[in-house]
Amino acid sequence: MMTGTGPHGMARVVVVYHSGYGHTQRMANSIAEGAGAELVVIDAEGNLPADGWETLGAADAIVMGSPTYMGGVSWQFKKFADASSAPWYTQTWKDKIFAGFTTSAALNGDKMSTLNYLFTLAMQHGGIWVSQGVMPSNSKSAQRNDANYLGSYSGAIAQSPSDAGASDMFAGDLETARRFGERVAEVARRFQR
Amino acid sequence: MMTGTGPHGMARVVVVYHSGYGHTQRMANSIAEGAGAELVVIDAEGNLPADGWETLGAADAIVMGSPTYMGGVSWQFKKFADASSAPWYTQTWKDKIFAGFTTSAALNGDKMSTLNYLFTLAMQHGGIWVSQGVMPSNSKSAQRNDANYLGSYSGAIAQSPSDAGASDMFAGDLETARRFGERVAEVARRFQR
Amino acid sequence: MMTGTGPHGMARVVVVYHSGYGHTQRMANSIAEGAGAELVVIDAEGNLPADGWETLGAADAIVMGSPTYMGGVSWQFKKFADASSAPWYTQTWKDKIFAGFTTSAALNGDKMSTLNYLFTLAMQHGGIWVSQGVMPSNSKSAQRNDANYLGSYSGAIAQSPSDAGASDMFAGDLETARRFGERVAEVARRFQR
Amino acid sequence: MMTGTGPHGMARVVVVYHSGYGHTQRMANSIAEGAGAELVVIDAEGNLPADGWETLGAADAIVMGSPTYMGGVSWQFKKFADASSAPWYTQTWKDKIFAGFTTSAALNGDKMSTLNYLFTLAMQHGGIWVSQGVMPSNSKSAQRNDANYLGSYSGAIAQSPSDAGASDMFAGDLETARRFGERVAEVARRFQR
Repeated sequence: MMTGTGPHGMARVVVVYHSGYGHTQRMANSIAEGAGAELVVIDAEGNLPADGWETLGAADAIVMGSPTYMGGVSWQFKKFADASSAPWYTQTWKDKIFAGFTTSAALNGDKMSTLNYLFTLAMQHGGIWVSQGVMPSNSKSAQRNDANYLGSYSGAIAQSPSDAGASDMFAGDLETARRFGERVAEVARRFQR
Repeated sequence: MMTGTGPHGMARVVVVYHSGYGHTQRMANSIAEGAGAELVVIDAEGNLPADGWETLGAADAIVMGSPTYMGGVSWQFKKFADASSAPWYTQTWKDKIFAGFTTSAALNGDKMSTLNYLFTLAMQHGGIWVSQGVMPSNSKSAQRNDANYLGSYSGAIAQSPSDAGASDMFAGDLETARRFGERVAEVARRFQR
Repeated sequence: MMTGTGPHGMARVVVVYHSGYGHTQRMANSIAEGAGAELVVIDAEGNLPADGWETLGAADAIVMGSPTYMGGVSWQFKKFADASSAPWYTQTWKDKIFAGFTTSAALNGDKMSTLNYLFTLAMQHGGIWVSQGVMPSNSKSAQRNDANYLGSYSGAIAQSPSDAGASDMFAGDLETARRFGERVAEVARRFQR
Repeated sequence: MMTGTGPHGMARVVVVYHSGYGHTQRMANSIAEGAGAELVVIDAEGNLPADGWETLGAADAIVMGSPTYMGGVSWQFKKFADASSAPWYTQTWKDKIFAGFTTSAALNGDKMSTLNYLFTLAMQHGGIWVSQGVMPSNSKSAQRNDANYLGSYSGAIAQSPSDAGASDMFAGDLETARRFGERVAEVARRFQR
């Protein structure tokens, strides 16, 4: 596993996510690229790798991602969330920086429900939540690959048609995710000092 | 005021809404057309016309609409909602059918926050809430004017660019609203018997 | 399995739930008692019994319940929700009556997040959602075992201390649940005709 | 107006709120006491004092408060929120620290809906949101005046019976608010450097 701990003054950002068909994984990669972050993958059974909890515990910022399935995070992500009751009980993650991202097939598709849940989870952990921070591109001249074309405020979102594979994701959604990673890392760095 | 009370077996549907720049009004008109509904307009000061409360009290179904401003209903709509504490206190609107709609410039733009609020308000009134009932059009071949292209489930939504007037609204969004009106009227009719 | 199909004119209500430590199960039992409902239990692996999906498919009303864990439904409930993408895809559950319930240790404890999720799930299924329908008991003279003492509007909720077993649940919370079952059955009956 | 700008290294915290019957005002006072904050009062017409916007613009942290009326912020608060579209448009408040609080008569009473809205508003402004940060007091031995007895995570909440005046508020709720003010100021201070 690569390390997210960069040079002096860098914050340690960890992206923890579950991906069903690869879309959320691509978002995670883009965010990690922007943030210089480590990835912790939740597997198909909702479990973390052996050192996953330790990596999360050492993070300055935790970026959480899941596809939106049936109006919320995937059950695998929720299994991770439920298992996080251990650090919750001791408030080990208190005052960490948190952020969230999700993807779905429909333009809206209740992605806000997923982001609201990720926010709620972060609040239970005593966290500090970072907004998207990029204004929507929503004038007549807006293009699909503009930054935040989808118009989210509380986290990063992506959308691809129900019959489009992960390789067909919109470049703008991934670039939006990459910039979001940069933003989270910068916020974590400011807060860390 | 035209009457929404139709022939024998019809339900009385009322659409109560505030519109800032005309977009919500066009949605309201489309829903009313589909539902055979009366309109009750919340004015620029957040007030109802003289017979507004009486019309709402006599309704079988109340469809509530507002633009999404700053992540929620307009203050004018909220003033109406706060004033509805009178029928709330006596639960006069209990068991009415409720539904909601909204519009904004961004594709997502926190419209779900507005719909969630309208739902919460309906729940306080002891109501019964009707879903959108049309699956999103979200495959590669989806077109902007398809029914429920925007992918909402909990109510009807529309979107037009920040620099587009109400006359430029997408025909598909308005047709989606019209069908939603039909649906609410049908649910109200079934429940009324 | 007992049958929820009662005499002529009765609606078939099914309560589908996951319970971790027995509190949600007691709520489910109370709701089922009020509604004359069948129970479908989601097991510790998030699976339904063999005939679970068929029972749900035949229901007029589906009441969904889960403990609130880490600000949302349990992962086991979410696994059921994700598996419901099969009836969602064909909208087999469209126009069913839906309702929800949850329990947690804290008085608030983000139970509304869980109810909001259950609502969102019902909306994805094209459903019709029933409010709690009982005003909160919130004056100075309110007693812990009053109906809706906890003050929920969008579904039934219960609360018991983190160190209290299911056998210690408050009688008022269970009676509130029982009445909620009655209400859902009545709404389903009215809608069914 | 007292100044919230303290000695070297202190953050400037501003509490902006609307209060209908004095309960929210007492919470605001407690938070301001904890944070060393200035107060900006939204009046009965939803307007700010002459220098209100300037004060908010100069803040490192903005703590927003409203009673929960009909499941959301009061219309007066919403009028303020809608008027904040001016700093929103230019993202003048980007990267400020935000937090929220509310009060209602019922124990739950949809206060989470209000906090979720305040969060959504902060996200539209590109803000950073601070959690409550105190674990709920929810064991059998919990007392009404314990810190976070009501069990909120995403902001500070208070509850008093529908027939209790502001002078009858629970000391524990106000102390919880005071500590929340301390927390917001500390987070703002850390982030400011």
